Amino acid sequence: MDPRPTAPPARDKLLFTPGPLTTSASVKQAMLHDAGSWHFEFNARVKWIRQQLLHVAGLAEADGPSPGSEQRYEAILLQGSGTFGVEAVFATCIPPQGKVAVLANGAYGERMVTMLQMARIAHVVWRVPEAQALNPEALDRALVEDPSVTHVAVVHCETTTGLLNPIAELGAVTRRHGRGYIVDAMSSFGAIPIDLPGWGIDYLISSANKCIEGVPGFSFVLARRAALLACEGFARSLSLDLLGQLKGFEKNGQFRYTPPTHALLAFGRALEELHAEGGVSARAQRYARNHQVLVEGMRRLGFPPYLDPQIQSYIITSFHYPKSPRFSFDVFYRKLSDQGYIIYPGKISQVDLFRIGSVGRLFEPDFHALLAAIAQTLDEMGVALP
Amino acid sequence: MDPRPTAPPARDKLLFTPGPLTTSASVKQAMLHDAGSWHFEFNARVKWIRQQLLHVAGLAEADGPSPGSEQRYEAILLQGSGTFGVEAVFATCIPPQGKVAVLANGAYGERMVTMLQMARIAHVVWRVPEAQALNPEALDRALVEDPSVTHVAVVHCETTTGLLNPIAELGAVTRRHGRGYIVDAMSSFGAIPIDLPGWGIDYLISSANKCIEGVPGFSFVLARRAALLACEGFARSLSLDLLGQLKGFEKNGQFRYTPPTHALLAFGRALEELHAEGGVSARAQRYARNHQVLVEGMRRLGFPPYLDPQIQSYIITSFHYPKSPRFSFDVFYRKLSDQGYIIYPGKISQVDLFRIGSVGRLFEPDFHALLAAIAQTLDEMGVALP
Repeated sequence: MDPRPTAPPARDKLLFTPGPLTTSASVKQAMLHDAGSWHFEFNARVKWIRQQLLHVAGLAEADGPSPGSEQRYEAILLQGSGTFGVEAVFATCIPPQGKVAVLANGAYGERMVTMLQMARIAHVVWRVPEAQALNPEALDRALVEDPSVTHVAVVHCETTTGLLNPIAELGAVTRRHGRGYIVDAMSSFGAIPIDLPGWGIDYLISSANKCIEGVPGFSFVLARRAALLACEGFARSLSLDLLGQLKGFEKNGQFRYTPPTHALLAFGRALEELHAEGGVSARAQRYARNHQVLVEGMRRLGFPPYLDPQIQSYIITSFHYPKSPRFSFDVFYRKLSDQGYIIYPGKISQVDLFRIGSVGRLFEPDFHALLAAIAQTLDEMGVALP
Repeated sequence: MDPRPTAPPARDKLLFTPGPLTTSASVKQAMLHDAGSWHFEFNARVKWIRQQLLHVAGLAEADGPSPGSEQRYEAILLQGSGTFGVEAVFATCIPPQGKVAVLANGAYGERMVTMLQMARIAHVVWRVPEAQALNPEALDRALVEDPSVTHVAVVHCETTTGLLNPIAELGAVTRRHGRGYIVDAMSSFGAIPIDLPGWGIDYLISSANKCIEGVPGFSFVLARRAALLACEGFARSLSLDLLGQLKGFEKNGQFRYTPPTHALLAFGRALEELHAEGGVSARAQRYARNHQVLVEGMRRLGFPPYLDPQIQSYIITSFHYPKSPRFSFDVFYRKLSDQGYIIYPGKISQVDLFRIGSVGRLFEPDFHALLAAIAQTLDEMGVALP
């Protein structure tokens, strides 16, 4: 009836994944309360969270743009996973005669395509191979050739491989052509500085359980207010109606439908801890250091990273399977799990890769411990490496 | 920056609402772990939860129907609130030429109508006044008159007022006419016995944070397998594709997209505690007793319940505002909150009512304490009652 072991370990296994992540004990402890979802005290916390998200994005400074400005942004929280947030942008913000160009070099770009197909929204896909970053010049030419495209959509950090797409340059091209710009920053927001107005981003989507280090339960969209308000009447879904959700917050401070109250309390705490750590730049440093320790250690063990370092993020890193016939990913994964380390299972790339994340409440010693467990595991498996 | 008081109380305020509810400390403590969302240990727990939900519904007994049976059901978990689950049924299970008859006597029936409008799904609404239960004979006549209706949708416990609709009798009529039957049992499942095959229910929707006494973060649908499998190709949304979600669970035991891992761990614990309490019938007894203590006490204070006792659920009860000019609901609500009791804020009925829930981890002494606080509050407000 219960799959838990009879002698539970003292600590949770560490998650070296792109999320859900290992979070701090204090973030989880923030969930030990039942809040009234429509209660004024809870509403005040939701309001603070929405403001703080803008602050993390470098928006809404004290001397920032006034509410009527074209450059004012709103933080909108939406129940469900990050995928729900991305679909909500499409379902709400693409006009009936709109057409989306998806720039794809991995599984998350392809997921956008599936969403658009199922929602019967006109679209075109401009693909490059998964080990190659998207090219702003190619986007420029393509937008010249297809004036019917109203919106460009791109994934910032493609966790299929760990590749970082040049969203600043792609945004400059998109804006020059006067098209809407949608960025899936699921696994990058909070860990990589993003200049929304400067890069022409109309809608940025991320999720509670990524680099803010909260727990899963909702996504959030940073939307340029003027762009979103112009979408009245487009929504194809009640649950995924992002403009309706914003209006709900502005009407009475509430979610329209039951919010994941505990996940929100955890997220509030996670935002406080991000601030205490020193904000996005400090978190970026920690994650970059984690990534560096990981890559150096894996190289020593004989694992070359898959991507060119120039396009490699410090969020998640792909490594080639060893060439040894004794290597089995399933055995490797289970043996690491037995030692308390969960790497990212499953393979969505087109080549034989495994992936290790550098994000969440992890520090340099955790990576040294993981590397030691990997060396021990390979030894046990009889996999000889250079 | 933080709306919490500087001297936090020892205990959380109790929630006398229809959910999110007050949950047990042990349910919340189950969230003090970070699980790998694609990890085999977590997948095993998800599988157990899905099986246990069928067990709670009285389905999938050891000698029950075989997988190929027309009467086999599946439990499908979906990220987001209960509303997402209801919309997922419509978005996935209504064929392009289908038409839904919504039987409405409250805000949650009306919400179904809004969903269908926004998803551009053909529908008709058959309404009765909110203090009146839906009528099976009227449904019979209406279905004779409109053969284009393919599905009938109804809310079991309409928390707008607390009214319980006769879903067994409505189901018998619907089945006799060979139409699909969709039941929103959000606030009743787990607390009121429901015979899915006996009552002809094809899809029943409920949510983690209702009478199973888990925390919010996902909904679940109990779907008749044969009915759902026949919906291939209908889905209008990727995130809300219920058949896709089932296929995901059956392919590799995983959610297609990031699940609310902590809410699922809490729900697993909540299911164990439901079983330990004695199952649905024991929980029904506790809630019914809570409701009885509440109604008797409120009558003594001079508050008549709004509904006829024959159609009144033991989930949530509506009471008329006192006639006194000194009564202000906002003041009443805030004073109860100050004493540690959160009743259901806001008014969605067409008359001046307030609502008090009887569900969640609440017991008879909690209702005596609430009643004392209400008496004290009315006294402070100078509201004289008979």
